[in-house]
Amino acid sequence: MSAGPVETGTAPIRPADRTAALALGDDALVLAQRLGEWAGHGPVLEEEVALANIALDLLGQARHLLSLVGNEDELAYLREEREFRNCQLVEQPNGDFAHTIARQLYFSTYQELLHNRLARTGTPFAPLSAKAVKEIAYHRDHAEHWTLRLGDGTPESRERMQRATDALWRYTGELFEPVGELPVDWTELNDSWLASVTSVLERATLTVPEGPRRGAWTAGAGREGLHTEPFGRMLAEMQHLHRSHPGASW
Amino acid sequence: MSAGPVETGTAPIRPADRTAALALGDDALVLAQRLGEWAGHGPVLEEEVALANIALDLLGQARHLLSLVGNEDELAYLREEREFRNCQLVEQPNGDFAHTIARQLYFSTYQELLHNRLARTGTPFAPLSAKAVKEIAYHRDHAEHWTLRLGDGTPESRERMQRATDALWRYTGELFEPVGELPVDWTELNDSWLASVTSVLERATLTVPEGPRRGAWTAGAGREGLHTEPFGRMLAEMQHLHRSHPGASW
Repeated sequence: MSAGPVETGTAPIRPADRTAALALGDDALVLAQRLGEWAGHGPVLEEEVALANIALDLLGQARHLLSLVGNEDELAYLREEREFRNCQLVEQPNGDFAHTIARQLYFSTYQELLHNRLARTGTPFAPLSAKAVKEIAYHRDHAEHWTLRLGDGTPESRERMQRATDALWRYTGELFEPVGELPVDWTELNDSWLASVTSVLERATLTVPEGPRRGAWTAGAGREGLHTEPFGRMLAEMQHLHRSHPGASW
Repeated sequence: MSAGPVETGTAPIRPADRTAALALGDDALVLAQRLGEWAGHGPVLEEEVALANIALDLLGQARHLLSLVGNEDELAYLREEREFRNCQLVEQPNGDFAHTIARQLYFSTYQELLHNRLARTGTPFAPLSAKAVKEIAYHRDHAEHWTLRLGDGTPESRERMQRATDALWRYTGELFEPVGELPVDWTELNDSWLASVTSVLERATLTVPEGPRRGAWTAGAGREGLHTEPFGRMLAEMQHLHRSHPGASW
């Protein structure tokens, strides 16, 4: 299910597209890393398989997007925290399973809407987007399924799902800041996202959060290289092997 | 690439087949867990994808085999260390990448030979074996490729690969102890394994280890529920979530 090689031609990438490739590539890379942390810790074996499959898809997307910019391994393993351009949503810790699901619902809904639109553009992203959108639809389905199951489940599962939904809400505003010069109507994207997420939360008998979708302290946020505190730890973990064996090819 | 559902009918499983299903299922489960520990720590992104794919295949095999015995989640998450029947080879820590590769070469070569034979039997394992053997052939190919690349690479990579090859050698004897009442000629299996592994090591310019293939202290070993010290830690990690939320369905 991973996004394998996609034909992209050899045209040099414009600076604005480089910015976009980094942002979208880092989103996928960082969320893949977070989901990978579930390996061996899933609630049931079937769910470990599902989360690992989603992580693999995202890792495939990340490799492709980062390779448009440069050496994808150097970009993944040798950049400093401030050079990463992922949104803050994807760097949030796994928390309990409900948090992982809420993060996935918010992100996959965004990603599906975005790549659906990019697939119909003349940008260098169109071929990957057309391919990725099929994977992402599965990720969103999976997150929706669990949101409904937990939200409309036991009192405890409902409470946890509501808490997760609320806690991550503040990171969703950033998703709709323009990225590079992508030919996307970000306001319309935001409206579509809100309609879709609202519908799922309501069907799950959850309350749509009322708080702001941007924390005051997130000004600039991940797309500008400003990351939340847990990201530094995650990155150190992810880059440890490489920094201790610089240039090792294995 | 995961081993999805396989038709097995509903005949009750014989006690000897139960023993075999546990042994082979635990092998796959434990190695999947070990490989999962590489998530986010692979030497390059491409390799993380490869290791995660192998882990997923093994997890699929484990789910199927354990489900022949009982509830696969309870078996994975609620058994004590002494109740696991995996061979000690698969529980050995990842170590450096060369150790991971040597472990995979030894195990996948064994697993491919075994499932090739089981696929042609009338045992309840035949359908899964026929399916799994295709996945396993890829795992063995992958391990062979890396053994050759590291062994016949730089002086440092060669030295590390030799060290890994030597260190894990003592765990390979156990693989050829009869399991349950599987209709397999274990002596012939051992001979085929030795011929195959020797050929790979020689092509990799490595020295075939000369030490015994059973440590004196491993009498009884994993198939009897006797495990090496690192296994306890791995299991605690793997079962932590479940033991802290007993009976949680998520």
